[in-house]
Amino acid sequence: MTYCVALALNGGIVAMSDTRTNAGVDNISTFRKMHTFEVPGDRALVVMTAGNLATTQAVISLLEERGKAPEERDPSILRAPSMFQVARIVGDTLKEVIADQSGTGPGADAFGATIILAGQIAGGPMRLFLIYPEGNFIEAGADTPFFQIGETKYGRPILVRALDRDMSFADAVKLLLVSFDSTIKANLSVDAPLDVQIIENDALRLGRGWRVAPDDPYFRSIRDGWGEALRDALQALPDFDMDAV
Amino acid sequence: MTYCVALALNGGIVAMSDTRTNAGVDNISTFRKMHTFEVPGDRALVVMTAGNLATTQAVISLLEERGKAPEERDPSILRAPSMFQVARIVGDTLKEVIADQSGTGPGADAFGATIILAGQIAGGPMRLFLIYPEGNFIEAGADTPFFQIGETKYGRPILVRALDRDMSFADAVKLLLVSFDSTIKANLSVDAPLDVQIIENDALRLGRGWRVAPDDPYFRSIRDGWGEALRDALQALPDFDMDAV
Repeated sequence: MTYCVALALNGGIVAMSDTRTNAGVDNISTFRKMHTFEVPGDRALVVMTAGNLATTQAVISLLEERGKAPEERDPSILRAPSMFQVARIVGDTLKEVIADQSGTGPGADAFGATIILAGQIAGGPMRLFLIYPEGNFIEAGADTPFFQIGETKYGRPILVRALDRDMSFADAVKLLLVSFDSTIKANLSVDAPLDVQIIENDALRLGRGWRVAPDDPYFRSIRDGWGEALRDALQALPDFDMDAV
Repeated sequence: MTYCVALALNGGIVAMSDTRTNAGVDNISTFRKMHTFEVPGDRALVVMTAGNLATTQAVISLLEERGKAPEERDPSILRAPSMFQVARIVGDTLKEVIADQSGTGPGADAFGATIILAGQIAGGPMRLFLIYPEGNFIEAGADTPFFQIGETKYGRPILVRALDRDMSFADAVKLLLVSFDSTIKANLSVDAPLDVQIIENDALRLGRGWRVAPDDPYFRSIRDGWGEALRDALQALPDFDMDAV
Protein backbone atom coordinates (compact mmCIF):
# COMPACT_ATOMS: atom_id res chain seq x y z
CA MET A 1 0.00 0.00 0.00
CA THR A 2 0.95 3.64 0.06
CA TYR A 3 -0.21 6.91 1.52
CA CYS A 4 0.35 10.24 -0.24
CA VAL A 5 -1.31 13.59 0.43
CA ALA A 6 -1.01 17.00 -1.18
CA LEU A 7 -2.52 20.11 0.40
CA ALA A 8 -3.29 23.20 -1.69
CA LEU A 9 -2.79 26.07 0.75
CA ASN A 10 -3.06 29.75 -0.02
CA GLY A 11 0.72 29.92 0.20
CA GLY A 12 1.39 26.92 -2.02
CA ILE A 13 1.57 23.15 -2.06
CA VAL A 14 2.70 20.83 0.72
CA ALA A 15 3.11 17.21 -0.38
CA MET A 16 3.97 14.18 1.72
CA SER A 17 4.37 10.52 0.82
CA ASP A 18 5.40 7.36 2.59
CA THR A 19 8.01 5.00 1.15
CA ARG A 20 6.81 1.52 1.96
CA THR A 21 5.97 -0.93 -0.78
CA ASN A 22 4.83 -4.46 -0.29
CA ALA A 23 4.03 -7.58 -2.23
CA GLY A 24 2.39 -9.42 0.62
CA VAL A 25 3.24 -8.66 4.24
CA ASP A 26 6.42 -10.72 4.01
CA ASN A 27 7.97 -8.79 1.15
CA ILE A 28 8.32 -5.14 2.02
CA SER A 29 10.73 -2.57 0.66
CA THR A 30 11.42 1.15 0.68
CA PHE A 31 10.86 3.06 -2.55
CA ARG A 32 10.45 6.73 -3.22
CA LYS A 33 6.92 7.57 -4.36
CA MET A 34 7.50 11.30 -4.66
CA HIS A 35 9.20 12.68 -7.76
CA THR A 36 9.97 16.30 -8.53
CA PHE A 37 10.58 18.17 -11.77
CA GLU A 38 11.89 21.70 -11.99
CA VAL A 39 12.84 24.28 -14.61
CA PRO A 40 13.84 27.16 -12.34
CA GLY A 41 11.97 30.34 -13.18
CA ASP A 42 9.57 28.41 -15.40
CA ARG A 43 7.98 25.54 -13.50
CA ALA A 44 8.07 23.32 -10.45
CA LEU A 45 6.16 20.03 -10.31
CA VAL A 46 5.68 17.26 -7.80
CA VAL A 47 4.29 13.86 -8.77
CA MET A 48 3.27 11.22 -6.22
CA THR A 49 2.25 7.69 -7.15
CA ALA A 50 0.19 4.91 -5.59
CA GLY A 51 -0.47 1.48 -7.01
CA ASN A 52 1.54 -1.13 -8.88
CA LEU A 53 5.21 -0.24 -8.46
CA ALA A 54 6.23 -1.53 -11.90
CA THR A 55 3.57 0.70 -13.43
CA THR A 56 4.45 3.81 -11.47
CA GLN A 57 8.20 3.41 -12.01
CA ALA A 58 7.64 3.01 -15.74
CA VAL A 59 5.48 6.16 -15.78
CA ILE A 60 8.14 8.18 -13.99
CA SER A 61 10.90 6.81 -16.25
CA LEU A 62 8.91 7.73 -19.37
CA LEU A 63 8.19 11.21 -18.02
CA GLU A 64 11.90 11.68 -17.32
CA GLU A 65 13.07 10.29 -20.67
CA ARG A 66 10.65 12.40 -22.63
CA GLY A 67 11.82 15.46 -20.79
CA LYS A 68 15.23 14.88 -22.35
CA ALA A 69 14.06 14.00 -25.86
CA PRO A 70 13.77 16.58 -28.64
CA GLU A 71 10.48 18.41 -28.36
CA GLU A 72 9.18 17.22 -31.72
CA ARG A 73 9.29 13.60 -30.71
CA ASP A 74 7.38 13.49 -27.49
CA PRO A 75 5.29 15.82 -25.40
CA SER A 76 7.19 16.61 -22.21
CA ILE A 77 6.00 17.81 -18.86
CA LEU A 78 9.07 20.07 -18.85
CA ARG A 79 7.85 21.99 -21.89
CA ALA A 80 4.03 21.74 -21.86
CA PRO A 81 2.58 25.26 -21.74
CA SER A 82 0.12 24.72 -18.87
CA MET A 83 -0.55 22.52 -15.85
CA PHE A 84 -3.61 21.18 -17.64
CA GLN A 85 -1.38 19.96 -20.49
CA VAL A 86 1.05 18.46 -17.98
CA ALA A 87 -1.84 16.57 -16.36
CA ARG A 88 -2.88 15.27 -19.78
CA ILE A 89 0.63 14.05 -20.52
CA VAL A 90 0.90 12.31 -17.14
CA GLY A 91 -2.58 10.79 -17.56
CA ASP A 92 -1.85 9.58 -21.09
CA THR A 93 1.48 8.11 -20.00
CA LEU A 94 -0.19 6.30 -17.09
CA LYS A 95 -2.94 4.90 -19.32
CA GLU A 96 -0.38 3.79 -21.91
CA VAL A 97 1.79 1.99 -19.35
CA ILE A 98 -1.16 0.20 -17.80
CA ALA A 99 -2.36 -0.91 -21.26
CA ASP A 100 1.16 -2.10 -22.16
CA GLN A 101 1.66 -4.08 -18.99
CA SER A 102 -1.74 -5.59 -18.48
CA GLY A 103 -2.80 -6.32 -22.03
CA THR A 104 -6.43 -7.32 -22.07
CA GLY A 105 -6.02 -10.33 -19.81
CA PRO A 106 -7.71 -11.00 -16.50
CA GLY A 107 -6.29 -9.28 -13.46
CA ALA A 108 -5.69 -6.08 -15.41
CA ASP A 109 -6.75 -4.13 -12.32
CA ALA A 110 -3.60 -5.30 -10.56
CA PHE A 111 -1.54 -3.08 -12.87
CA GLY A 112 -3.44 0.07 -11.93
CA ALA A 113 -2.06 3.17 -10.29
CA THR A 114 -3.20 6.62 -9.25
CA ILE A 115 -1.18 9.81 -9.35
CA ILE A 116 -1.23 13.17 -7.59
CA LEU A 117 0.25 16.00 -9.65
CA ALA A 118 0.83 19.47 -8.23
CA GLY A 119 2.75 22.46 -9.44
CA GLN A 120 2.86 25.76 -11.22
CA ILE A 121 4.05 26.94 -14.64
CA ALA A 122 5.02 30.57 -15.32
CA GLY A 123 1.96 32.54 -16.35
CA GLY A 124 -0.53 30.23 -14.66
CA PRO A 125 -1.71 29.50 -11.15
CA MET A 126 -0.62 26.68 -8.82
CA ARG A 127 -2.80 23.65 -9.57
CA LEU A 128 -3.40 20.27 -7.94
CA PHE A 129 -4.69 17.22 -9.84
CA LEU A 130 -5.67 13.65 -9.07
CA ILE A 131 -5.05 11.40 -12.07
CA TYR A 132 -6.88 8.08 -12.47
CA PRO A 133 -5.63 4.84 -14.05
CA GLU A 134 -7.93 5.59 -17.01
CA GLY A 135 -5.82 8.69 -17.69
CA ASN A 136 -8.51 11.23 -16.85
CA PHE A 137 -8.20 13.55 -13.88
CA ILE A 138 -9.89 15.96 -11.49
CA GLU A 139 -8.63 19.19 -9.97
CA ALA A 140 -8.78 20.29 -6.35
CA GLY A 141 -10.90 23.35 -5.64
CA ALA A 142 -11.67 25.63 -2.73
CA ASP A 143 -14.17 23.15 -1.25
CA THR A 144 -11.72 20.23 -1.22
CA PRO A 145 -8.23 21.71 -1.20
CA PHE A 146 -6.41 18.39 -0.85
CA PHE A 147 -6.04 14.97 -2.45
CA GLN A 148 -5.05 11.66 -0.93
CA ILE A 149 -4.10 8.41 -2.68
CA GLY A 150 -3.44 4.91 -1.38
CA GLU A 151 -4.64 4.08 2.12
CA THR A 152 -6.68 7.26 2.53
CA LYS A 153 -9.25 6.50 5.19
CA TYR A 154 -7.45 6.42 8.54
CA GLY A 155 -5.80 9.79 7.98
CA ARG A 156 -8.77 11.55 6.46
CA PRO A 157 -10.85 12.65 9.50
CA ILE A 158 -8.10 14.91 10.84
CA LEU A 159 -7.58 16.49 7.41
CA VAL A 160 -11.30 17.12 6.97
CA ARG A 161 -11.53 18.70 10.40
CA ALA A 162 -8.33 20.68 10.71
CA LEU A 163 -7.18 21.67 7.23
CA ASP A 164 -7.36 25.40 6.66
CA ARG A 165 -6.10 26.95 3.43
CA ASP A 166 -4.65 29.82 5.43
CA MET A 167 -2.42 27.62 7.56
CA SER A 168 1.35 28.03 7.47
CA PHE A 169 3.63 25.46 5.86
CA ALA A 170 4.87 24.52 9.33
CA ASP A 171 1.32 23.87 10.58
CA ALA A 172 0.57 21.92 7.42
CA VAL A 173 3.59 19.68 8.01
CA LYS A 174 2.38 19.09 11.57
CA LEU A 175 -1.13 18.23 10.32
CA LEU A 176 0.23 15.85 7.70
CA LEU A 177 2.47 14.08 10.20
CA VAL A 178 -0.58 13.48 12.40
CA SER A 179 -2.52 12.16 9.41
CA PHE A 180 0.39 9.87 8.49
CA ASP A 181 0.75 8.73 12.08
CA SER A 182 -2.90 7.60 12.20
CA THR A 183 -2.38 5.68 8.96
CA ILE A 184 0.94 4.12 9.94
CA LYS A 185 -0.52 3.00 13.27
CA ALA A 186 -3.38 1.23 11.48
CA ASN A 187 -1.85 -0.16 8.28
CA LEU A 188 1.39 -2.13 8.26
CA SER A 189 1.91 -1.39 4.58
CA VAL A 190 2.36 2.35 5.14
CA ASP A 191 5.51 3.48 6.91
CA ALA A 192 8.24 6.07 7.33
CA PRO A 193 10.59 7.42 6.09
CA LEU A 194 8.31 10.09 4.70
CA ASP A 195 9.18 12.43 1.85
CA VAL A 196 8.06 16.05 2.10
CA GLN A 197 8.10 18.69 -0.62
CA ILE A 198 6.95 22.30 -0.48
CA ILE A 199 6.30 24.49 -3.52
CA GLU A 200 5.59 28.13 -2.75
CA ASN A 201 3.17 30.01 -4.96
CA ASP A 202 4.91 31.94 -7.74
CA ALA A 203 8.37 30.72 -6.71
CA LEU A 204 8.50 28.67 -9.95
CA ARG A 205 11.11 26.47 -8.34
CA LEU A 206 10.96 23.68 -5.81
CA GLY A 207 10.94 24.84 -2.22
CA ARG A 208 12.20 22.87 0.70
CA GLY A 209 12.12 19.11 0.34
CA TRP A 210 13.34 16.63 2.91
CA ARG A 211 12.93 13.13 4.27
CA VAL A 212 11.47 12.40 7.72
CA ALA A 213 13.22 9.37 9.19
CA PRO A 214 11.28 6.90 11.35
CA ASP A 215 13.27 8.09 14.36
CA ASP A 216 13.09 11.81 13.50
CA PRO A 217 12.80 13.59 16.88
CA TYR A 218 9.98 15.93 15.77
CA PHE A 219 7.99 13.09 14.20
CA ARG A 220 8.47 11.08 17.39
CA SER A 221 7.21 13.99 19.49
CA ILE A 222 4.10 14.13 17.29
CA ARG A 223 3.56 10.38 17.54
CA ASP A 224 4.00 10.38 21.30
CA GLY A 225 2.02 13.57 21.87
CA TRP A 226 -0.94 12.91 19.60
CA GLY A 227 -2.42 10.12 21.71
CA GLU A 228 -2.45 12.32 24.77
CA ALA A 229 -3.70 15.33 22.79
CA LEU A 230 -6.58 13.24 21.44
CA ARG A 231 -7.50 11.99 24.88
CA ASP A 232 -7.44 15.57 26.15
CA ALA A 233 -9.63 16.66 23.22
CA LEU A 234 -12.12 13.94 24.09
CA GLN A 235 -12.02 15.02 27.71
CA ALA A 236 -12.76 18.59 26.68
CA LEU A 237 -16.04 17.59 25.03
CA PRO A 238 -19.16 17.75 27.18
CA ASP A 239 -19.69 14.60 29.24
CA PHE A 240 -22.55 12.29 28.44
CA ASP A 241 -25.18 12.10 31.14
CA MET A 242 -26.22 8.46 31.55
CA ASP A 243 -29.31 9.55 33.44
CA ALA A 244 -30.57 11.42 30.40
CA VAL A 245 -31.51 8.17 28.64
CA MET B 1 -22.48 0.15 4.25
CA THR B 2 -22.67 -0.05 8.00
CA TYR B 3 -20.64 0.81 11.05
CA CYS B 4 -20.92 -1.15 14.30
CA VAL B 5 -18.56 -1.17 17.27
CA ALA B 6 -18.53 -3.04 20.56
CA LEU B 7 -16.18 -2.12 23.39
CA ALA B 8 -15.28 -4.62 26.11
CA LEU B 9 -14.73 -2.45 29.18
CA ASN B 10 -13.93 -3.63 32.67
CA GLY B 11 -17.49 -2.71 33.62
CA GLY B 12 -19.15 -4.46 30.70
CA ILE B 13 -20.04 -4.06 27.04
CA VAL B 14 -21.00 -0.89 25.19
CA ALA B 15 -22.28 -1.50 21.68
CA MET B 16 -23.24 1.03 19.03
CA SER B 17 -24.51 0.62 15.47
CA ASP B 18 -25.75 2.88 12.71
CA THR B 19 -28.99 2.21 10.84
CA ARG B 20 -28.32 3.15 7.26
CA THR B 21 -28.55 0.56 4.52
CA ASN B 22 -28.02 1.20 0.87
CA ALA B 23 -28.23 -0.51 -2.48
CA GLY B 24 -26.44 2.17 -4.43
CA VAL B 25 -26.38 5.77 -3.29
CA ASP B 26 -29.88 6.35 -4.64
CA ASN B 27 -31.57 3.65 -2.61
CA ILE B 28 -31.02 4.20 1.08
CA SER B 29 -33.13 3.03 3.98
CA THR B 30 -33.09 2.79 7.75
CA PHE B 31 -32.84 -0.66 9.29
CA ARG B 32 -31.89 -1.78 12.73
CA LYS B 33 -28.59 -3.65 12.78
CA MET B 34 -28.50 -4.24 16.52
CA HIS B 35 -30.51 -7.07 18.02
CA THR B 36 -30.71 -8.06 21.65
CA PHE B 37 -31.63 -11.30 23.39
CA GLU B 38 -32.27 -11.67 27.09
CA VAL B 39 -33.23 -14.28 29.65
CA PRO B 40 -33.19 -12.19 32.82
CA GLY B 41 -30.97 -13.69 35.48
CA ASP B 42 -29.49 -16.13 32.95
CA ARG B 43 -28.10 -14.27 29.93
CA ALA B 44 -27.99 -11.02 28.00
CA LEU B 45 -26.74 -10.92 24.41
CA VAL B 46 -26.28 -8.26 21.76
CA VAL B 47 -25.79 -9.12 18.10
CA MET B 48 -24.78 -6.55 15.45
CA THR B 49 -24.64 -7.28 11.75
CA ALA B 50 -22.88 -5.83 8.71
CA GLY B 51 -23.19 -6.98 5.14
CA ASN B 52 -25.98 -8.16 2.87
CA LEU B 53 -29.26 -7.14 4.53
CA ALA B 54 -31.19 -10.18 3.26
CA THR B 55 -28.52 -12.41 4.78
CA THR B 56 -28.38 -10.64 8.12
CA GLN B 57 -32.17 -10.43 8.47
CA ALA B 58 -32.46 -14.14 7.73
CA VAL B 59 -29.83 -14.92 10.34
CA ILE B 60 -31.62 -12.87 12.99
CA SER B 61 -35.00 -14.43 12.07
CA LEU B 62 -33.56 -17.93 12.36
CA LEU B 63 -31.94 -17.13 15.70
CA GLU B 64 -35.26 -15.79 16.96
CA GLU B 65 -37.34 -18.69 15.61
CA ARG B 66 -35.01 -21.29 17.04
CA GLY B 67 -35.20 -19.60 20.40
CA LYS B 68 -38.90 -20.43 20.43
CA ALA B 69 -38.65 -23.97 19.09
CA PRO B 70 -38.46 -27.03 21.36
CA GLU B 71 -34.91 -27.58 22.48
CA GLU B 72 -34.60 -30.99 20.85
CA ARG B 73 -35.17 -29.57 17.39
CA ASP B 74 -32.66 -26.79 17.12
CA PRO B 75 -29.81 -25.37 19.11
CA SER B 76 -30.83 -21.99 20.48
CA ILE B 77 -28.77 -19.04 21.63
CA LEU B 78 -31.29 -18.70 24.47
CA ARG B 79 -30.38 -22.10 25.88
CA ALA B 80 -26.78 -22.76 24.87
CA PRO B 81 -24.69 -23.30 28.01
CA SER B 82 -21.83 -20.91 27.17
CA MET B 83 -20.97 -17.86 25.09
CA PHE B 84 -18.67 -20.05 23.04
CA GLN B 85 -21.62 -22.28 22.13
CA VAL B 86 -23.71 -19.20 21.32
CA ALA B 87 -20.97 -17.97 18.99
CA ARG B 88 -20.90 -21.36 17.27
CA ILE B 89 -24.68 -21.29 16.76
CA VAL B 90 -24.57 -17.76 15.33
CA GLY B 91 -21.61 -18.66 13.10
CA ASP B 92 -23.24 -21.86 11.85
CA THR B 93 -26.48 -20.00 11.16
CA LEU B 94 -24.63 -17.29 9.25
CA LYS B 95 -22.70 -19.84 7.16
CA GLU B 96 -25.91 -21.77 6.44
CA VAL B 97 -27.81 -18.66 5.30
CA ILE B 98 -24.98 -17.52 3.03
CA ALA B 99 -24.75 -21.00 1.48
CA ASP B 100 -28.55 -21.08 0.99
CA GLN B 101 -28.73 -17.69 -0.63
CA SER B 102 -25.65 -17.69 -2.78
CA GLY B 103 -25.52 -21.27 -3.94
CA THR B 104 -22.27 -21.86 -5.71
CA GLY B 105 -22.81 -19.25 -8.41
CA PRO B 106 -20.59 -16.30 -9.17
CA GLY B 107 -20.98 -13.23 -7.00
CA ALA B 108 -21.37 -15.38 -3.90
CA ASP B 109 -19.33 -12.81 -1.98
CA ALA B 110 -22.19 -10.33 -2.34
CA PHE B 111 -24.24 -12.42 0.09
CA GLY B 112 -21.62 -12.20 2.82
CA ALA B 113 -22.02 -10.67 6.26
CA THR B 114 -20.04 -10.23 9.44
CA ILE B 115 -21.41 -10.28 12.97
CA ILE B 116 -20.37 -8.94 16.35
CA LEU B 117 -21.67 -10.95 19.29
CA ALA B 118 -21.29 -9.83 22.89
CA GLY B 119 -22.83 -10.97 26.14
CA GLN B 120 -22.68 -13.04 29.25
CA ILE B 121 -24.29 -16.26 30.43
CA ALA B 122 -24.68 -17.14 34.12
CA GLY B 123 -21.60 -18.94 35.38
CA GLY B 124 -19.31 -17.50 32.71
CA PRO B 125 -17.59 -14.21 31.96
CA MET B 126 -18.66 -11.44 29.60
CA ARG B 127 -17.30 -12.25 26.14
CA LEU B 128 -17.03 -10.44 22.83
CA PHE B 129 -16.77 -12.21 19.46
CA LEU B 130 -16.32 -11.27 15.82
CA ILE B 131 -17.96 -13.84 13.55
CA TYR B 132 -16.91 -14.22 9.91
CA PRO B 133 -19.03 -15.20 6.90
CA GLU B 134 -17.31 -18.59 6.96
CA GLY B 135 -18.89 -19.20 10.37
CA ASN B 136 -15.67 -19.13 12.36
CA PHE B 137 -14.91 -16.43 14.89
CA ILE B 138 -12.35 -14.66 17.04
CA GLU B 139 -12.63 -13.29 20.56
CA ALA B 140 -11.54 -9.90 21.85
CA GLY B 141 -8.78 -9.91 24.44
CA ALA B 142 -7.01 -7.46 26.69
CA ASP B 143 -4.78 -6.23 23.86
CA THR B 144 -7.65 -5.43 21.51
CA PRO B 145 -10.71 -4.92 23.68
CA PHE B 146 -13.02 -3.89 20.83
CA PHE B 147 -14.37 -5.02 17.47
CA GLN B 148 -15.61 -2.99 14.54
CA ILE B 149 -17.49 -4.19 11.45
CA GLY B 150 -18.51 -2.40 8.24
CA GLU B 151 -16.80 0.89 7.42
CA THR B 152 -14.18 0.57 10.12
CA LYS B 153 -11.29 2.76 9.02
CA TYR B 154 -12.33 6.37 9.54
CA GLY B 155 -13.42 5.78 13.12
CA ARG B 156 -10.52 3.55 14.13
CA PRO B 157 -7.71 6.00 14.99
CA ILE B 158 -9.64 7.59 17.85
CA LEU B 159 -10.54 4.17 19.27
CA VAL B 160 -6.95 2.97 19.09
CA ARG B 161 -5.73 6.12 20.80
CA ALA B 162 -8.37 6.81 23.42
CA LEU B 163 -9.98 3.52 24.40
CA ASP B 164 -9.24 2.53 27.95
CA ARG B 165 -10.82 -0.54 29.52
CA ASP B 166 -11.26 1.37 32.76
CA MET B 167 -13.38 4.12 31.22
CA SER B 168 -16.93 4.68 32.40
CA PHE B 169 -19.94 3.81 30.24
CA ALA B 170 -20.58 7.54 29.80
CA ASP B 171 -17.05 8.16 28.53
CA ALA B 172 -17.34 5.14 26.26
CA VAL B 173 -20.54 6.53 24.74
CA LYS B 174 -18.77 9.84 24.14
CA LEU B 175 -15.82 8.05 22.51
CA LEU B 176 -18.11 5.99 20.29
CA LEU B 177 -20.07 9.05 19.18
CA VAL B 178 -16.80 10.69 18.10
CA SER B 179 -15.80 7.55 16.22
CA PHE B 180 -19.21 7.43 14.52
CA ASP B 181 -19.06 11.13 13.72
CA SER B 182 -15.74 10.69 11.86
CA THR B 183 -17.26 7.82 9.89
CA ILE B 184 -20.54 9.57 9.12
CA LYS B 185 -18.68 12.66 7.93
CA ALA B 186 -16.64 10.58 5.49
CA ASN B 187 -19.02 7.88 4.23
CA LEU B 188 -22.53 8.67 2.99
CA SER B 189 -23.62 5.11 3.57
CA VAL B 190 -23.24 5.34 7.36
CA ASP B 191 -25.69 7.54 9.24
CA ALA B 192 -27.73 8.17 12.37
CA PRO B 193 -29.99 7.26 14.06
CA LEU B 194 -27.58 5.19 16.12
CA ASP B 195 -28.55 2.33 18.41
CA VAL B 196 -26.75 1.98 21.72
CA GLN B 197 -26.83 -0.95 24.12
CA ILE B 198 -25.04 -1.41 27.41
CA ILE B 199 -24.63 -4.72 29.23
CA GLU B 200 -23.10 -4.50 32.68
CA ASN B 201 -20.87 -7.30 33.88
CA ASP B 202 -22.76 -9.88 35.94
CA ALA B 203 -26.10 -8.12 35.52
CA LEU B 204 -27.27 -11.03 33.34
CA ARG B 205 -29.85 -8.74 31.83
CA LEU B 206 -29.72 -5.98 29.24
CA GLY B 207 -28.76 -2.61 30.60
CA ARG B 208 -29.72 0.69 29.13
CA GLY B 209 -30.47 0.70 25.43
CA TRP B 210 -31.55 3.70 23.41
CA ARG B 211 -31.52 5.32 20.01
CA VAL B 212 -29.54 8.49 19.24
CA ALA B 213 -31.51 10.58 16.73
CA PRO B 214 -29.65 12.58 14.06
CA ASP B 215 -30.72 15.79 15.82
CA ASP B 216 -30.03 14.52 19.34
CA PRO B 217 -28.71 17.56 21.26
CA TYR B 218 -25.81 15.72 22.88
CA PHE B 219 -24.73 14.11 19.60
CA ARG B 220 -24.93 17.52 17.95
CA SER B 221 -22.75 19.03 20.67
CA ILE B 222 -20.17 16.28 20.02
CA ARG B 223 -20.29 16.81 16.27
CA ASP B 224 -19.93 20.56 16.61
CA GLY B 225 -17.34 20.40 19.35
CA TRP B 226 -15.10 17.72 17.93
CA GLY B 227 -13.77 19.79 15.04
CA GLU B 228 -12.68 22.52 17.41
CA ALA B 229 -11.32 20.04 19.95
CA LEU B 230 -9.22 18.40 17.22
CA ARG B 231 -7.87 21.72 16.04
CA ASP B 232 -6.99 22.58 19.64
CA ALA B 233 -5.29 19.20 20.03
CA LEU B 234 -3.23 19.86 16.93
CA GLN B 235 -2.36 23.30 18.25
CA ALA B 236 -1.21 21.79 21.52
CA LEU B 237 1.41 19.67 19.76
CA PRO B 238 4.89 21.17 19.43
CA ASP B 239 5.22 23.41 16.37
CA PHE B 240 7.37 22.34 13.47
CA ASP B 241 10.42 24.50 12.92
CA MET B 242 10.81 25.09 9.19
CA ASP B 243 14.36 26.24 9.74
CA ALA B 244 15.29 22.83 11.09
CA VAL B 245 15.22 21.32 7.60
